[in-house]
Amino acid sequence: MDDIRQNPSSGDEVALRRIQRLSLHLYTPSEPHSGGLSLLPCRAKRNLSPSVESLSEYMRGPHREIQARIFEFFQSRPDLQTPVEISMAEHRQLCMRQMTALVREAGIRPFRYLVENPSAYFAIAEAVGGVDISLGIKMGVQFSLWGGSVINLGTKKHKEKYFDGIDNLDYPGCFAMTELHHGSNVQALQTTAIFDPITDEFVINTPNDGAIKWWIGNAAVHGKFASVFARLVLPLQGKGGKSADMGIHAFIVPIRDLETHSLLPGVEIHDCGHKVGLNGVDNGALRFSHVRVSRDNLLNRFGDVSRDGKYTSSLPTVNKRFAATLGELVGGRVGLAYSSVGVLKIAVTIAVRYSLLRQQFGPPRKPEVSVLDYQSQQHRLMPMLASTYAFHFATQYLVDKYSEMKKTNDDQVIGDVHALSAGLKSYVTSYTARSISTCRESCGGHGYAAVNRFGILRNDHDIFQTFEGDNTVLLQQVAGDLLKRYQEKFKGGTLTMTWNYLRESMSSYLSQPNPVTARWEGEDHLRDPKFQLDAFRHRTSRLLQSVAARLQKHSKTLGSFGAWNRCLNHLLTLAESHIESVVLAKFIEAVQNCPDANTREVLKLVCDLYALDRIWKDIGTYRNVDYVAPNKAKAIHKLTDYLSFQVRGVARELVDAFDLPDLVIRAPIGMASEAYEQYTQHVGF
Amino acid sequence: MDDIRQNPSSGDEVALRRIQRLSLHLYTPSEPHSGGLSLLPCRAKRNLSPSVESLSEYMRGPHREIQARIFEFFQSRPDLQTPVEISMAEHRQLCMRQMTALVREAGIRPFRYLVENPSAYFAIAEAVGGVDISLGIKMGVQFSLWGGSVINLGTKKHKEKYFDGIDNLDYPGCFAMTELHHGSNVQALQTTAIFDPITDEFVINTPNDGAIKWWIGNAAVHGKFASVFARLVLPLQGKGGKSADMGIHAFIVPIRDLETHSLLPGVEIHDCGHKVGLNGVDNGALRFSHVRVSRDNLLNRFGDVSRDGKYTSSLPTVNKRFAATLGELVGGRVGLAYSSVGVLKIAVTIAVRYSLLRQQFGPPRKPEVSVLDYQSQQHRLMPMLASTYAFHFATQYLVDKYSEMKKTNDDQVIGDVHALSAGLKSYVTSYTARSISTCRESCGGHGYAAVNRFGILRNDHDIFQTFEGDNTVLLQQVAGDLLKRYQEKFKGGTLTMTWNYLRESMSSYLSQPNPVTARWEGEDHLRDPKFQLDAFRHRTSRLLQSVAARLQKHSKTLGSFGAWNRCLNHLLTLAESHIESVVLAKFIEAVQNCPDANTREVLKLVCDLYALDRIWKDIGTYRNVDYVAPNKAKAIHKLTDYLSFQVRGVARELVDAFDLPDLVIRAPIGMASEAYEQYTQHVGF
Repeated sequence: MDDIRQNPSSGDEVALRRIQRLSLHLYTPSEPHSGGLSLLPCRAKRNLSPSVESLSEYMRGPHREIQARIFEFFQSRPDLQTPVEISMAEHRQLCMRQMTALVREAGIRPFRYLVENPSAYFAIAEAVGGVDISLGIKMGVQFSLWGGSVINLGTKKHKEKYFDGIDNLDYPGCFAMTELHHGSNVQALQTTAIFDPITDEFVINTPNDGAIKWWIGNAAVHGKFASVFARLVLPLQGKGGKSADMGIHAFIVPIRDLETHSLLPGVEIHDCGHKVGLNGVDNGALRFSHVRVSRDNLLNRFGDVSRDGKYTSSLPTVNKRFAATLGELVGGRVGLAYSSVGVLKIAVTIAVRYSLLRQQFGPPRKPEVSVLDYQSQQHRLMPMLASTYAFHFATQYLVDKYSEMKKTNDDQVIGDVHALSAGLKSYVTSYTARSISTCRESCGGHGYAAVNRFGILRNDHDIFQTFEGDNTVLLQQVAGDLLKRYQEKFKGGTLTMTWNYLRESMSSYLSQPNPVTARWEGEDHLRDPKFQLDAFRHRTSRLLQSVAARLQKHSKTLGSFGAWNRCLNHLLTLAESHIESVVLAKFIEAVQNCPDANTREVLKLVCDLYALDRIWKDIGTYRNVDYVAPNKAKAIHKLTDYLSFQVRGVARELVDAFDLPDLVIRAPIGMASEAYEQYTQHVGF
Repeated sequence: MDDIRQNPSSGDEVALRRIQRLSLHLYTPSEPHSGGLSLLPCRAKRNLSPSVESLSEYMRGPHREIQARIFEFFQSRPDLQTPVEISMAEHRQLCMRQMTALVREAGIRPFRYLVENPSAYFAIAEAVGGVDISLGIKMGVQFSLWGGSVINLGTKKHKEKYFDGIDNLDYPGCFAMTELHHGSNVQALQTTAIFDPITDEFVINTPNDGAIKWWIGNAAVHGKFASVFARLVLPLQGKGGKSADMGIHAFIVPIRDLETHSLLPGVEIHDCGHKVGLNGVDNGALRFSHVRVSRDNLLNRFGDVSRDGKYTSSLPTVNKRFAATLGELVGGRVGLAYSSVGVLKIAVTIAVRYSLLRQQFGPPRKPEVSVLDYQSQQHRLMPMLASTYAFHFATQYLVDKYSEMKKTNDDQVIGDVHALSAGLKSYVTSYTARSISTCRESCGGHGYAAVNRFGILRNDHDIFQTFEGDNTVLLQQVAGDLLKRYQEKFKGGTLTMTWNYLRESMSSYLSQPNPVTARWEGEDHLRDPKFQLDAFRHRTSRLLQSVAARLQKHSKTLGSFGAWNRCLNHLLTLAESHIESVVLAKFIEAVQNCPDANTREVLKLVCDLYALDRIWKDIGTYRNVDYVAPNKAKAIHKLTDYLSFQVRGVARELVDAFDLPDLVIRAPIGMASEAYEQYTQHVGF
């Protein structure tokens, strides 16, 4: 190739001259020089030798056994496995059969776990999501949303009447909250439930097309009931004898006949049709025309209506009742954050294994090298692998906290779970969504074969960013919570656990950065968890302080809505920064708590990559306040590349430790062995 | 809501205390304050009033007429429109019918345009891609790849024999380059074509499973011929009478009987099956078992074999012949970059129109506001809209240059087109891929309905990042080219046009940044094209200089392959930075050349947003070398938000000016009017 690069050649053929320009196509840079491939950096270090068993043992949740039962069941039932190409109608039926078989044949009763052992419920949800994400969501609709609304918003009478039917799938149901015109702004829903004191019934009605219930899972085909969110209207109870709008309440509305499955009078359902993904879930649009339900069908835990049409509640205002109602739904977010990490593990495993297998280009007259040996591929995949570990520990913590909350009802824990579930759901699902695309790209053409999973994972997971709370809205809740804590701090109030650092060290974070440490650039310093955590928290604290000041300033002229909007990007950055601080703190704890020294060392490496990659990605912020000097910024960059290279050395073990069975991976190119053979066989050779 | 935020309430019910924590769910910040919604920044400015007609007139390419003919044809033929849900088998047949109808019924002959007027060919490709991206790619396979290989790599005899059949679709064909084990590294393909001097034939053979031709479009169902890339082996022509491997050459291989369509002897084809997208294109995997083709079937423009088995070529080495061969395929990249902008326009149009329509939340006791009035939504979509304009002008320039190259065969232009097509294809397709996801997310749940297009656009477009040259590989070609120019600069050689700035101002860019201008932060300065272009070019120049030094240093110890790999991330950043410099320069030119003052002012605003958003996104780099002082960084950030807000004010006109017919938009939520009504009607209300 040398001749092309160095000698302009004297030939006068057009083609000859052209070659000069075309040499680009041979991007391998010039002549051989060294004796062989030297990808290793200069620093000599002993190689890590991780034990997959030990890593896997430490990563494994407490409910591995029930997950294994699920995998074994589906492994034994090829008729229940979702094929790569399947029509929407078939997929919906298959998904229902999968869920029914799980409950009635495998004897796994998710609803009971949901109520008695939520941590096990989330483990079940993750496992069935590994079988088919549609199945995970279909199950979530039935048990967490429809079942959860009955259990958490209803009272004893509802539990007695509906528990068994929900549990054994005799009562498939829907969760009818979202309307065509309103998703995030639940308080603005327009469906009405007007009490009729003469018949002792509520009349459920869709007043206009914008109020059609939209995207309702289980509605298009299978649902027999729906918990419908509607404005409760009580005639004569308002000022001057007018009707009183008591705000959003949930009602159990039968939508199909239990025997014939035909639509009940006044209920109109259309099929929302083909979706980007999750086509195993049958979403429908519902219009109610003066549908009458018994007064008992009001889910009346937080507010009730008496026989004479009077309202009673332990909660004094519409807003408090609304908050209590929505607050009961937080489990869905916990489950999504947790399951999203499960999806990320699948994608990363496939991408890393294929990148180890795939060879392309190499030094002159040497064998080709694995594409994971390219710095660019390490740059794409190794911080992602590190993040997967980070999110694993963070969401495990969230699930534990949620279980604790359900047991103790402790205020501190409630506050923690609500903000943390909003933040982690948002942060993790956005990250996973981006990463699945990156994984596809990093597997090139073969990543584009449907059988290799990235398409269906991306399409199915995509909506995790939107449902159960749009990510942009949820991050604002986190920011709002931080601002509240910030104000409480100055009032001397208590802070929930995850936020503690704000009190402990806010003042030190907000002082001018130390010009001496800003110049420390040794590896020991950069890999010190104290430096890393300080950097994350420093950023969060500064963002918090500055946005609080900006909000105060702008609200004088723009009002609070206008001021919030003027600072919106700032607020979102603050929320993300805070969530990253929490994730890092939990990762550092997990490293420190790991009992096996060898495994701990591997996890420490992964944790360092997570921390430094994040700092480098936002280096502009750190540089702007001189938290790091220019040379320190360079050192961080260099170390990040180096840590990616180090993690590449143990990448196979790190993905193997996720311990995902072939049933879940499925992609021929993602198999632990004989990947190419499985791929050619799949195609028919 | 005030009570929740401010008064801890004295009730002792658990639920009551809980509410305190749950107030997060009502993220609207506290009490009303101002009389109304004040989203406007303080600065008073006269509103821009863009004329859609004038903008559209300026944006419109020279081949709008033929595009309109295509749209009208498909508009008149509902039977040829692709439904939202369609099986792979049906989609493939439909796609073939679409292409056949275009050629035989609408009378549009893409192949003739490809040869005679490439700029019109790209316009046709963009338009049919708007009908169905699968159709665009199916057409590309037939005319640009199969047809292009015959025309550009063959000679007169091939043109005479095959032109008409390719043009009128009697000869559907494939482009069989990629193998299971080799995509990017074309020089390592393993399929062989051994000359048999006795029968005067080539024997095409697949020596092992890794050499199976994979992903070959048109092969699974429709193709009758393939241009097969294989190592040409000449018996007795090597040293000591051994066989000589002459490197990769292309051969026309008939694969199916022209009459019966059955597979020809020795040809084994399997279906590559379901893909992430583009399921209207039938990709197959081909194994050849000693398939014999006439000596005439060698596409012999750059190398030929005589009757007695001797090799002749106007090009002296294997590498030069290989470069010449691949160089002829550059048109595919031009087309992909151009069509990718077309896809981006569709996605942006849908997202912007829906964001204007959709209202959610608002100030207390005021109507809800359009989601595009939220700073976060502007932040997501307005720089994307600006980039779409930027890419429009840049790819239009590329197409013009390509046409010029085909006419003149000028060396300078050839060099420019090759590096620029690699860079723009890579940069634009990566950007579009990310942006389609962002558009889906910014449209929330309704963005997830298949009918609203984001899923199919993302899935179909995804592989644009990989085929016709993996983006990571192409960016390295750009970096390699820059390094070559950099060396030439010091040798006093000529530079191709797009690179000129390297010579003109490299030295000034490489001097220390001016500490005075680093502090200028006035809007006039920041919106001065000179400042913007200087910033972009400064970054490119520094990256180039520093990577050249690093490569030199590392190659001493690691060899050139190892050094290149050690600097790989740096090289990719350099390539992207350079492409951004070119895009900005072309955008600035387009603004300056716009004849209508009003339209020019609008374009200037959009161009400023493009430039400053990019500078802000990489602010760490600028800060690290003190190219901008901290306060200037802040000013850039603030102005970027402000420009996004300004562009939001003309967003409707900016997307309308893309002038895309409803046939192309199709998404109910992306219609210019009555979007919700179209959506409910689609679902069946």
